[in-house]
Amino acid sequence: MTYGHTPPIFQIVGYKNAGKTTVTTALITHFSEMGFKTGSLKHHGHGGEPKRVQGTDSMKHLEAGSAISAIQDEHMVQMTISDQEPIALETILKWYRALHIDILFLEGYKCAPFPKIVLLRNHEDLHLLNQLSCILAVGSINGEILQDSNFPTFRLDHLNAYLPQLATYIRIKLNL
Amino acid sequence: MTYGHTPPIFQIVGYKNAGKTTVTTALITHFSEMGFKTGSLKHHGHGGEPKRVQGTDSMKHLEAGSAISAIQDEHMVQMTISDQEPIALETILKWYRALHIDILFLEGYKCAPFPKIVLLRNHEDLHLLNQLSCILAVGSINGEILQDSNFPTFRLDHLNAYLPQLATYIRIKLNL
Repeated sequence: MTYGHTPPIFQIVGYKNAGKTTVTTALITHFSEMGFKTGSLKHHGHGGEPKRVQGTDSMKHLEAGSAISAIQDEHMVQMTISDQEPIALETILKWYRALHIDILFLEGYKCAPFPKIVLLRNHEDLHLLNQLSCILAVGSINGEILQDSNFPTFRLDHLNAYLPQLATYIRIKLNL
Repeated sequence: MTYGHTPPIFQIVGYKNAGKTTVTTALITHFSEMGFKTGSLKHHGHGGEPKRVQGTDSMKHLEAGSAISAIQDEHMVQMTISDQEPIALETILKWYRALHIDILFLEGYKCAPFPKIVLLRNHEDLHLLNQLSCILAVGSINGEILQDSNFPTFRLDHLNAYLPQLATYIRIKLNL
């Protein structure tokens, strides 16, 4: 896999209900407030489809066979890209290249090779710390799990207090 | 305005309730069935926002300040791009460049300079034929309006029968 030139990317990974969306949303807010133009991309995971708005003209276009259907109003464009083949992450990242953002947060995509936070639910999740690459910090709702970690750690219920320090780590790592 | 290198573009324009989505959907189906990788872009017009799915993680990302939020499942990516500034058509067309489609149907964007079908509701809409550029054909639900047109015409209730001929016109015009 080659990712070519993309925006600086930071990942938030972990199993379902580990707190990924909470952490991703907090990081988006923090970086946006610092003036960074942020983007985000979430992997929906298996078993279940993203919610779609049925009956819209955009869905009519897709159902007619449009591979890429978008709808624009003044300040927003909603675009849906569908393909018979699975869509590779590197393909999606190419699209982001054209969008000129300062930092892209990926929620999910565990095995992608970008700097990342790993979120742990319980001891059974600890194997992720051996399996995944480029770990910058580890978070959990359960402080006890974090005790033996070799990485910087934070408790999810202390996220807001930890956010400035985490953002500094991320900026150093990504040269921002 | 400069549009640079984009996929071949064909427009379907007209006022609200002139039949734009019907014609666009029929063209997408026809070209897709012929094996073309088609894309589409609809201008939502003024007064009213596209429907959004509230409460999704994608919306949480946007509300947190993400300028571009996307969600992926295996065969589909839904991407929302928001901006404080109005998003120009030429900016959106740049994104389509990265998507490698054979033909892009634009629904709306009356004043854009691409070959187009104009759909008329009544005599009051006839001024569009003098105002708009690159008209390839004119359609209406009302056959009487079409009688004095200098362009190839079709009745919307005869659309299916006319579609192969219309597609041929479009392919010749766009060198497809």
